[in-house]
Amino acid sequence: MIHLYTDSSPNGFKITIALEELGLPYTLHHVRLDAGEHRQPDFLRLHPHGRIPVLVDEDSDITLFESAAILLYLAEKTGNLLPTEPRARWQAMQWLLFHAASVGPLMGQRVHFEIFSRTRNAEAMERYRRLTNEAFATLDQHLSRHHFLAGDAYSIADIAHFGWTHIARIVDFDFSQYPHLSAWHERVAARPAVRLGVTLPAPATGA
Amino acid sequence: MIHLYTDSSPNGFKITIALEELGLPYTLHHVRLDAGEHRQPDFLRLHPHGRIPVLVDEDSDITLFESAAILLYLAEKTGNLLPTEPRARWQAMQWLLFHAASVGPLMGQRVHFEIFSRTRNAEAMERYRRLTNEAFATLDQHLSRHHFLAGDAYSIADIAHFGWTHIARIVDFDFSQYPHLSAWHERVAARPAVRLGVTLPAPATGA
Repeated sequence: MIHLYTDSSPNGFKITIALEELGLPYTLHHVRLDAGEHRQPDFLRLHPHGRIPVLVDEDSDITLFESAAILLYLAEKTGNLLPTEPRARWQAMQWLLFHAASVGPLMGQRVHFEIFSRTRNAEAMERYRRLTNEAFATLDQHLSRHHFLAGDAYSIADIAHFGWTHIARIVDFDFSQYPHLSAWHERVAARPAVRLGVTLPAPATGA
Repeated sequence: MIHLYTDSSPNGFKITIALEELGLPYTLHHVRLDAGEHRQPDFLRLHPHGRIPVLVDEDSDITLFESAAILLYLAEKTGNLLPTEPRARWQAMQWLLFHAASVGPLMGQRVHFEIFSRTRNAEAMERYRRLTNEAFATLDQHLSRHHFLAGDAYSIADIAHFGWTHIARIVDFDFSQYPHLSAWHERVAARPAVRLGVTLPAPATGA
């Protein structure tokens, strides 16, 4: 049995979406960040840095944190959502890592300074708005020539980016000026597994 | 033949170190960031987002950006620097991704606000000092029980983290209060391939 420890969040939705896409049975454990449950000893034994999501696969006795690592694990476990042809596979890996290192963390900083911080730090708000818009522009350019990030096939790279574009829509980080990115977002959002995944363990409702 | 497009930087050193560790022949192309060469059309054809490093493997006709994706590619190509036993392999993947998503990007923000920005943005400086210190503490706790990040064996997870701890030392982001992380850093720094890798294409000299 697979256990997923998560909360309503961009990184959490990546895994609920992937599990629903793959049709894998799993037990959902709601780690309530607003109640500080990620800082409790039981959870810190799963992830010493106290972040969600964490996946525990009892079949393989593997416990994993970091959403991109979990997405790769699930793709390899099932042989789905990651192309097998080498060039397409490395395209998927590259765009998965582009999300993990160069988009998601900057979106997180933008959310912090625009939504959570009450200081109205103009320099930081401008910096992260600019950097995330540059990432949107790069994605838009790529998606002007490809249906999905790895090419023709929907993959874990799409799921990773969608976790954050879903939140961007909710918190009004406008990316409508990027038509190819917007059309890709709608294509992904329409998938039944995606529609279900973003409601687990509870829908995100914005700040 | 492998071509590496890079500059003296934490993310670039990860790949020069890995290539030297693996003994792979490669051609080094120095992309001078301070001359804006990463924004030239020739380079943007390799990486539309204009970042280093980029690796081109003519043998497989694969072009890759994102340092963690390149590290994974080189490990899979050679069957080295990534454990094959599943639990150890996913430990390495997890700590590689922890670096890529949860340490490297925050170190980058700390460098920006502490070193490059002239605004002395106290809130941002405090935020990224705190977040990177929290990451150092998590690594220190893990390394108190393991010789390397994936366990007994040196892997691409160590190389990824070292790229940034090397820079941390140069720019005086002090992590001496984390004894296990510091001892691990010295173990990695002493390796001949690491000593060579951080000099290519030129040694980083701080800000």
